Amino acid sequence: MADKRYEILEAKEAVLADNDAVAAGTRVLLKEKGVFLVNLMSSPGSGKTTTLLRTIDALNDRYRIGVIEADVDSDVDATAVADAGAAVVQVHTGGSCHMDASMTLEGLKHLDLDDLDLVFLENVGNLVCPAEFDVGANRKVMILSVPEGDDKPLKYPLMFTVSDAMLINKIDVAPVFDFDYDSCEQRAKVLNPNLFTTRMSSLTGEGFDAWLQWLEKEICRWREEL
Amino acid sequence: MADKRYEILEAKEAVLADNDAVAAGTRVLLKEKGVFLVNLMSSPGSGKTTTLLRTIDALNDRYRIGVIEADVDSDVDATAVADAGAAVVQVHTGGSCHMDASMTLEGLKHLDLDDLDLVFLENVGNLVCPAEFDVGANRKVMILSVPEGDDKPLKYPLMFTVSDAMLINKIDVAPVFDFDYDSCEQRAKVLNPNLFTTRMSSLTGEGFDAWLQWLEKEICRWREEL
Repeated sequence: MADKRYEILEAKEAVLADNDAVAAGTRVLLKEKGVFLVNLMSSPGSGKTTTLLRTIDALNDRYRIGVIEADVDSDVDATAVADAGAAVVQVHTGGSCHMDASMTLEGLKHLDLDDLDLVFLENVGNLVCPAEFDVGANRKVMILSVPEGDDKPLKYPLMFTVSDAMLINKIDVAPVFDFDYDSCEQRAKVLNPNLFTTRMSSLTGEGFDAWLQWLEKEICRWREEL
Repeated sequence: MADKRYEILEAKEAVLADNDAVAAGTRVLLKEKGVFLVNLMSSPGSGKTTTLLRTIDALNDRYRIGVIEADVDSDVDATAVADAGAAVVQVHTGGSCHMDASMTLEGLKHLDLDDLDLVFLENVGNLVCPAEFDVGANRKVMILSVPEGDDKPLKYPLMFTVSDAMLINKIDVAPVFDFDYDSCEQRAKVLNPNLFTTRMSSLTGEGFDAWLQWLEKEICRWREEL
């Protein structure tokens, strides 16, 4: 390409490459500190905060837990999470519909990592862009709630492709919705055969243990690799 | 600023300014063709497609209806909408989490506007970025479904600020959710005192007439201004 007189910048690819470099650095930091980071993603209102609160309640005696709360411009969840006993930092994305690696690293810097074992990033409620950005987490977990419908893997495939676990939430209200669990899981597994899936209600606690068991198993596997 | 040796580009502002210019042009085109364009926005799974299908069914004998179906990368809704009797074009946003004015104009060019009175854009399921982009529509309508929770105006304020109407959908399942209609509407109206709000179920049809009446009134008002 010696005769090329100008450069073509694929801006999005460049942004994502920069992001990936920061994310890789974040994982080095997390390894050094022995902190396991979970990137929790879903649509608005799928139950990220309720899931977090119940998870903190269940694991608080065995892990020192921190939470990065990401919101476009509010802090309605941060107080509830702090009340549950986790160390919390609220990140405002300034209009951005997703967290990237730099914003997440800034959030981590505002937590005392020497004093934590497990950190959750509660990402912005959005099934599209958060899937594109590696934030440096050790595992990506997505929640799909029953009221959203079983066709979502068809419409937002990347989220299901990149996640390690899909928690089908709000099964307590399944009787009033037309949601086909098998079809949903099958659609997701076509995209991602290794996806862990479970059915649960963060509100009632039904099925919640399977999620906790998966999470603790993943933390153990990660620690063994350290 | 004569001594300034370089320009600072506020990239996002520039993109939005370009977008607004295209949107203004689209509204001139729509006026010329006598076509009323509605930008329909919500989270994934709030009921945009079900609302559209029932709306088409109710208005099909009085308006010639077209639909621009926007999806990241699928066409699962387009067939259903075409079956309902509307002229449909499917737009793939190529990974983008929102429609902008140029993509919408492209969609309109693929519909026969001389043969239509009313076009709905079913935007990408997302409560964040679609609110930022004027697509050239005559009215912006958002759906918030009961399962998402009554706190959403606090967490995604721009969507509620820029919309002309908020349809609170899935009231048929309200008994199994803890949703405070009054608080939700109050939170939205603090952001946007002129917001039309209504409570309905696109599934059962309960409360649906208020939405149709509002829409027809807005179409009449727009036609009077032509």
